[in-house]
Amino acid sequence: MKIPLTLGIDIGGTFTKFGFTDHDGNILEEASLPTNAKDGVDAFLLRLYDTVAKAFEGLKDHAELKAVGIGVPNGNYYKGTVENPPNLGWGKITPLAELVSKHYQIPTFLTNDANAAALGEKKFGVAKNMKDFVVITLGTGLGSGIVVNGELVYGADGFAGELGHVNVNPNGRVCGCGKKGCLETYASATGIKRTVFKFMADKIEPSELRDIPYNQLTGNMITEAALRGDPVAIAAFEYTGRILGMKLADTVAHLSPEAIILFGGLTKAGAYLFDPIHKHMEENMFGIFKNKVKLLTSGLEGKNVAVLGSSALAWQELDRKKM
Amino acid sequence: MKIPLTLGIDIGGTFTKFGFTDHDGNILEEASLPTNAKDGVDAFLLRLYDTVAKAFEGLKDHAELKAVGIGVPNGNYYKGTVENPPNLGWGKITPLAELVSKHYQIPTFLTNDANAAALGEKKFGVAKNMKDFVVITLGTGLGSGIVVNGELVYGADGFAGELGHVNVNPNGRVCGCGKKGCLETYASATGIKRTVFKFMADKIEPSELRDIPYNQLTGNMITEAALRGDPVAIAAFEYTGRILGMKLADTVAHLSPEAIILFGGLTKAGAYLFDPIHKHMEENMFGIFKNKVKLLTSGLEGKNVAVLGSSALAWQELDRKKM
Repeated sequence: MKIPLTLGIDIGGTFTKFGFTDHDGNILEEASLPTNAKDGVDAFLLRLYDTVAKAFEGLKDHAELKAVGIGVPNGNYYKGTVENPPNLGWGKITPLAELVSKHYQIPTFLTNDANAAALGEKKFGVAKNMKDFVVITLGTGLGSGIVVNGELVYGADGFAGELGHVNVNPNGRVCGCGKKGCLETYASATGIKRTVFKFMADKIEPSELRDIPYNQLTGNMITEAALRGDPVAIAAFEYTGRILGMKLADTVAHLSPEAIILFGGLTKAGAYLFDPIHKHMEENMFGIFKNKVKLLTSGLEGKNVAVLGSSALAWQELDRKKM
Repeated sequence: MKIPLTLGIDIGGTFTKFGFTDHDGNILEEASLPTNAKDGVDAFLLRLYDTVAKAFEGLKDHAELKAVGIGVPNGNYYKGTVENPPNLGWGKITPLAELVSKHYQIPTFLTNDANAAALGEKKFGVAKNMKDFVVITLGTGLGSGIVVNGELVYGADGFAGELGHVNVNPNGRVCGCGKKGCLETYASATGIKRTVFKFMADKIEPSELRDIPYNQLTGNMITEAALRGDPVAIAAFEYTGRILGMKLADTVAHLSPEAIILFGGLTKAGAYLFDPIHKHMEENMFGIFKNKVKLLTSGLEGKNVAVLGSSALAWQELDRKKM
C-alpha cells in the first residue's frame, strides 16, 4: 500500500513553500518557489504545479497524494477563495481551492496563514491535547487563529480571528488597514520597530539601533539588541508586551482559552517579551480567569510551520470525513 | 404518550423563576419564588422543590419531565457547579446540578444566565438559523453568551464570554470586580446611570434626571427620559453606544459573528442606543467585516427569557444525545 500524504502549500507575498506530509507530521519532501504575484495567478499555478511535480518525482512510486491544504493571506475557508489579498494583487476573488482541486483531482482546502498555524499546533505542536486555545503570529503584522471546542473559529464569513486589528487606542498609530491604533501597529515586527523609533526620539540612552535606518531595521535586529542588553530594545519589548498583554486579557474574557501560543521571530527575545505580556495580561484579567491561562511558545518553531500548518488543514478535513 | 417537558430554572439574586417548557418553546406553566440566598442553598432547594411540585400538579397526568436546565450567576457548565456567586453567598463551590439531578432523578444542566439567554435565542428566538452570534445582556451588569459553529463557547474552564469585563480604559471607572474601566461600568443599566451623573456634572442643560438621587435612578427612568427628549439622557445613550460599539468591533475581529443580539430594558431606547452602537462599531471595524454584522434586538423580549433560556439548555442537551 502506498503511503498517504497531503500536500501543504503556504503562499506568501514573496515566497511559496510546499511539502508532502504524512499523518504524523513528517515532511517527506519540501521545496519553495518565488510567488511572483504580479504575473497573475494562472502563471503562478503553472510554475507551482511544475515545481510540485518535480519534488514528488522521488516519492510517486511509494506514496499517494490524498488532499491539498493551502495557507494564504485572506484565504476564505468556506468558499475556498482568496479575497483581495493585500500582497498578492490577484484581483478581487480567486477560486484557488477549485483551481488546484481540478488540477490534482483531489480535495483541496484553504484558509489564512495564521489559521493554518493554529491547526498545525493542534495536530503536530504544543496544542495537541487542547480544545480551546489561541495562536498569535508575530510577523510583519499580527495574525491569529482561534480554536474553540476543538474547532477552528471561522465565523459567519470565514474570516474570524483578526486580532491584529482590535483597537488599542482610537487615536493611536496609523495602520495599513486604514484604521488607527490597531494592535499590530504595536505588537508585530513592524510594530516594535515603530516603538524603537518612538523611543529613540523620546529617550536619550545610547543604543546600537541609532545607527540603523528605519527601512533596514528588522525584528531580528531588535531581538538581538535586546539579548545584548540594549536599553532601547529592551524598553521596546516591554512596551510591546504591555500592550499585547492588555489586549490578550480581552481575548481571554471572550474565549477563556487553555493557552495562548506565541509564534514568530520576536519570541526569541524570551523573557524580554514574555514577562511583560504575562504581567499585563494578568493585571488586566477578570478575576475568574486569573492564573489559569498558559502563555506558550510555538511547538513548531524551527520546523517548516508553513507546510505543517497547511498540511494539518488537509489532514483534519480527511480525518473529519472518516468520522 | 405523555408530553415531554423540561424544567427551566433561572436563579437570580432576588427571585428565582421557573417554568415547564415543551420542545417548541411553549411555557405550559410558570412560577417564581424569592431566592432568599442568605438562608443557604439547602433551604432554598427545599422551597424550590415544593413550589415546583405545586406548579407541576396540573400537568403531571399528561406530561413528563425529561431534564432540568438552570441559569445561574457563575454557573459552570462543565462541572455543574456554582462558583463564588456574587449575589448568592452560597460559599465557594455548590454542586447544584448534582443536587437537583439527584432529587428529580433526571439529567440536569447548568450555565450562567447570559449563556442561557444565548441558547434561548438560538432555540426559540432571532438566532434560530444562525451558527455564529453573540448575545449581549444589558442589565445591572453586562453579560454575554457567544455561539461559534452552532455551539456555545464555554472555553477551557466553563466561564468564557465575560464581555462585561473587557477593558475600555485602564484608568477608567472602578468596577465591582476590582479592575478599572471594564465595559460594564459604561454599558449596562448601572453604567449609563454613572454616565448620567457624570454628564449632570459636566453639562448645564436642564434635565428631569437632576431631581432624582443616584440610588433611585434606574435604567428605565433614563430610557423614558431619552424617549421624552431629555438632552442629558440622550447624550448618555450616545456615550454608552459609542463605547459599546467600539468594543463590539473588537468582538467582531475575534469571532466574525453573523449578528450581535442586544437584550435588556435599555434596548427600549431604540435608535438612541442602536444608532451610536452601529455607527461606532462600523467606524472601528476592520475592513473585511464592515457592513456584514447584523445588530438585532432579542427575539424573546417580553417573553419569559429566563425560563426559555434555561429550558433551551436542557433541550439542547437532550437533542444532542439523540443525535
